[in-house]
Amino acid sequence: MTLADVARLAGVGLGTASRALNDAPGVSDATRRRVLEVAAHHSYVVSPDASRLAGGATRRVAVVVPHLSRWFFGAMVESMQGVFFEAGLDVLLYQVKDGEARHTFFAELPALRKVDALVAVGLDIDDLERKRLEIMGVHVVSAGGQHAVYPHVCIDDLEAGRLAVDHLLALGHRAIAMIETDDPDQAVHPHGRSKAFYAAMTRHRVEVDPRFVIKTSWGAEQGADASGTLLGYTDPPTAIYAHSDEVAFGAIRTIRRAGLRVPEDISVVGIDDHPVASLVDLTTVRQPVAGQGEAAARMVVDLLRGEDPPRAVTMPTTLIVRRSTARPRRRRDLSR
Amino acid sequence: MTLADVARLAGVGLGTASRALNDAPGVSDATRRRVLEVAAHHSYVVSPDASRLAGGATRRVAVVVPHLSRWFFGAMVESMQGVFFEAGLDVLLYQVKDGEARHTFFAELPALRKVDALVAVGLDIDDLERKRLEIMGVHVVSAGGQHAVYPHVCIDDLEAGRLAVDHLLALGHRAIAMIETDDPDQAVHPHGRSKAFYAAMTRHRVEVDPRFVIKTSWGAEQGADASGTLLGYTDPPTAIYAHSDEVAFGAIRTIRRAGLRVPEDISVVGIDDHPVASLVDLTTVRQPVAGQGEAAARMVVDLLRGEDPPRAVTMPTTLIVRRSTARPRRRRDLSR
Repeated sequence: MTLADVARLAGVGLGTASRALNDAPGVSDATRRRVLEVAAHHSYVVSPDASRLAGGATRRVAVVVPHLSRWFFGAMVESMQGVFFEAGLDVLLYQVKDGEARHTFFAELPALRKVDALVAVGLDIDDLERKRLEIMGVHVVSAGGQHAVYPHVCIDDLEAGRLAVDHLLALGHRAIAMIETDDPDQAVHPHGRSKAFYAAMTRHRVEVDPRFVIKTSWGAEQGADASGTLLGYTDPPTAIYAHSDEVAFGAIRTIRRAGLRVPEDISVVGIDDHPVASLVDLTTVRQPVAGQGEAAARMVVDLLRGEDPPRAVTMPTTLIVRRSTARPRRRRDLSR
Repeated sequence: MTLADVARLAGVGLGTASRALNDAPGVSDATRRRVLEVAAHHSYVVSPDASRLAGGATRRVAVVVPHLSRWFFGAMVESMQGVFFEAGLDVLLYQVKDGEARHTFFAELPALRKVDALVAVGLDIDDLERKRLEIMGVHVVSAGGQHAVYPHVCIDDLEAGRLAVDHLLALGHRAIAMIETDDPDQAVHPHGRSKAFYAAMTRHRVEVDPRFVIKTSWGAEQGADASGTLLGYTDPPTAIYAHSDEVAFGAIRTIRRAGLRVPEDISVVGIDDHPVASLVDLTTVRQPVAGQGEAAARMVVDLLRGEDPPRAVTMPTTLIVRRSTARPRRRRDLSR
């Protein structure tokens, strides 16, 4: 596919096609859109030789996030921004809240060739998207999630989950519930956090009660609802392991509203160490969020300088014991 | 100042100066930096006629924020992003965490001419910065703060503060403390939230105890410390009015850690309706954060389309009564 092909298929002259692809003036919005659509459809990439934007000269990095109002993503982008600023790189921010936004983003980016590198924050990249990025020839780094293909910075979810569940088991809990989180818009699923639960229970020869495993999407309200289900059982769990702090916050609210106490009646543990965790005295597994963002940004800077950064950085996690976990009350006490 | 002047002062040829200013390849980093410094120092602006980037053709909007890991800013940028995405505009994100980053940003932006418009989120713009933006000829909108010169979207801080303080007064509180917040990095000071306190107290003929007014910077830890001071008095306040929810969260933690109860011993009210507020049952004054972001982004889109949006949009605030406020206990009860 050449520029002439794009021009022919879009029904415009060569000059117009070039101007549209290079975002230059003198092209109507409708024409520009048509040219871009043709280029995207045929995965046409502006030739480095033919383009003003050759050789990494855009000096821009795309940061792609599913959310920004959630602390994890905001803190991650904040920490990247500092590294990119130091390196003289501008950040083009793309939020792909849903499937449509995501599709548009990956379909248009290659044709537009707006950036030298892309950081996917807490987002998996599927094979089709990967192909588009390859055609475009940009560097890609994944932050806050493992990736089989791209350099990435993440935590070990299996280890984070183990720290949380082992803590509950060591306190003597056996009736442990898990609130698993899943997010259709956020393709990085921390499966390790679920696996860790089953592994720890098996290691301690504790049978998992399937009613005690509840799958929900991320968020405090979802955690509140899931806990309501758990409290509805005649034999509720004595401890709840939540995949994230925000889910744990919701669980704590539900427990308190039901007239029960944390941790005397039910223990709760999360993962993150969200800034609010210390305020509500939540026991949690801390993950270095700013650290992950900085490391991912440094990977990008190294790649753009032609250096060879590590392919994968795994950041350590730490159990932070606060006042939301304690030894379980004896069973018969619960009926008082 | 002409392009020839810039070239002469930077000690380079006309073509090199032009390429450096237009971010084109074929210029070393050191030379590019020197040219940009000269251009910035003399407030040289790339002539619209001489530049490829004429007539708003960058299709990029700069969003400038002091913080991103704080919910207010993340939620604001998230909501803007949606409007800009719809309008086909890219977002260049700039975080100006401190004075130096801010200075660099405003010094370099005019010479680089990277954007068609700029949204300052929760940031005041001083006269020098305003002059640079004027030279650049970009549209400027202020979000989350009033501005005398630029179109802006904000809440009425005086009204928000009145709602919070009147609520405490109506419950019968007289010994009311205020935790005032101030942020050296964030030039938009919600002075109205302080004024509202003094006005409401005067209206109810209640004398303000100067020991009960504590000035601190934004943040939960700061709120926790300020509350520690208040609880140290032999006659502590019966209610605390915090300028933001995050400050109120810290206050609640300190009160609970001191073995006192919220609201039985001390009432606490904030401003924001942060997502965590409902989880900790905080009474607060809700401000529409996503609404402000969307309105500001729409203002930008209208300005770029040559339309004439309203100069100022003030969003309504609402008192949300939860369980952190109640009637004060009688004085003698406090000593129990």
